[in-house]
Amino acid sequence: MLKPEKKITTRRVYRGHAVGLRVDTVETARGREAAREVVEHSECIAVVAVDEDDRVLLVRQFRYAVGRFLLEIPAGGIDPGEEPLDAVRRELQEEIGYLPGRVERLGGFYAIPGYGDEYLHCFLATDLVSSRLVAEDTESIELVRVPRQQTQQLIASGEICDAKSIAALLLFLYVERTE
Amino acid sequence: MLKPEKKITTRRVYRGHAVGLRVDTVETARGREAAREVVEHSECIAVVAVDEDDRVLLVRQFRYAVGRFLLEIPAGGIDPGEEPLDAVRRELQEEIGYLPGRVERLGGFYAIPGYGDEYLHCFLATDLVSSRLVAEDTESIELVRVPRQQTQQLIASGEICDAKSIAALLLFLYVERTE
Repeated sequence: MLKPEKKITTRRVYRGHAVGLRVDTVETARGREAAREVVEHSECIAVVAVDEDDRVLLVRQFRYAVGRFLLEIPAGGIDPGEEPLDAVRRELQEEIGYLPGRVERLGGFYAIPGYGDEYLHCFLATDLVSSRLVAEDTESIELVRVPRQQTQQLIASGEICDAKSIAALLLFLYVERTE
Repeated sequence: MLKPEKKITTRRVYRGHAVGLRVDTVETARGREAAREVVEHSECIAVVAVDEDDRVLLVRQFRYAVGRFLLEIPAGGIDPGEEPLDAVRRELQEEIGYLPGRVERLGGFYAIPGYGDEYLHCFLATDLVSSRLVAEDTESIELVRVPRQQTQQLIASGEICDAKSIAALLLFLYVERTE
């Protein structure tokens, strides 16, 4: 029978713009003390956006943390007090210049459960209407339209190579939700 | 034409057991200065392990960072100087008590490219032979065997809900690699 770990003490290491870090001391399932590093991040949304020609709208941007340009689905943090669906509508207008008429849930998942609390809500957005919101951090994003069938090839070839994009696109292509 | 961001300065915030954190000042593509928080983590391996009865071997464990038990594929960090394939053999013996006779690459992806450098190498492991390595952090892991076809239902129902497990299992079930 597995037991949860209980917090004994917590130490704040960092609280920054998008990321926080704390180190907790916990009592493990076996009754020992251990340290747990926890990277804190807001909940996020990630969106498979499909236009009227059945093309998936992807974004190419430089990702400083990994030192290269990546081709990903649109995604972003949920602001304090914001609902996930409102974050979808805001992010799509900021990143790709469209407002979705229809948004459906595809699923959700933790990004790095071993050392961080980020949870991503995944959506399918359709009925896209041109609508642009300007945001400072989205000025260096390039929109890339890919026929639905081609997204799987981009995953297979390794051109799409981040966990949320692969998980969300394959959920969209292959998995019927039963939650 | 998109440009990469260039590091101007770097500030070490934390260097811990499994996680590091630094805050860099960069020159953005538009020539402005901006801060970039980077969570540092070793490269990891994640493994879809399939036994001779076509069951996928999953692990259930308490994930302190998200405060709940999760059902995931076996995964872990690559030790300094260790090859990914050796990490696969070590982790499977530690987490599920098997040594794989055959290991094939399924793909790879960044976990949190917006704020962290972790890259996961994904493998398919078969021809499993009982072999146990004892490791301190794997004593509270429960092995769960699931028929291959059922893994998709566990994803659809939300019971499997971490990005690497969803991405790796759907790569295994649906995507033929062309890298």
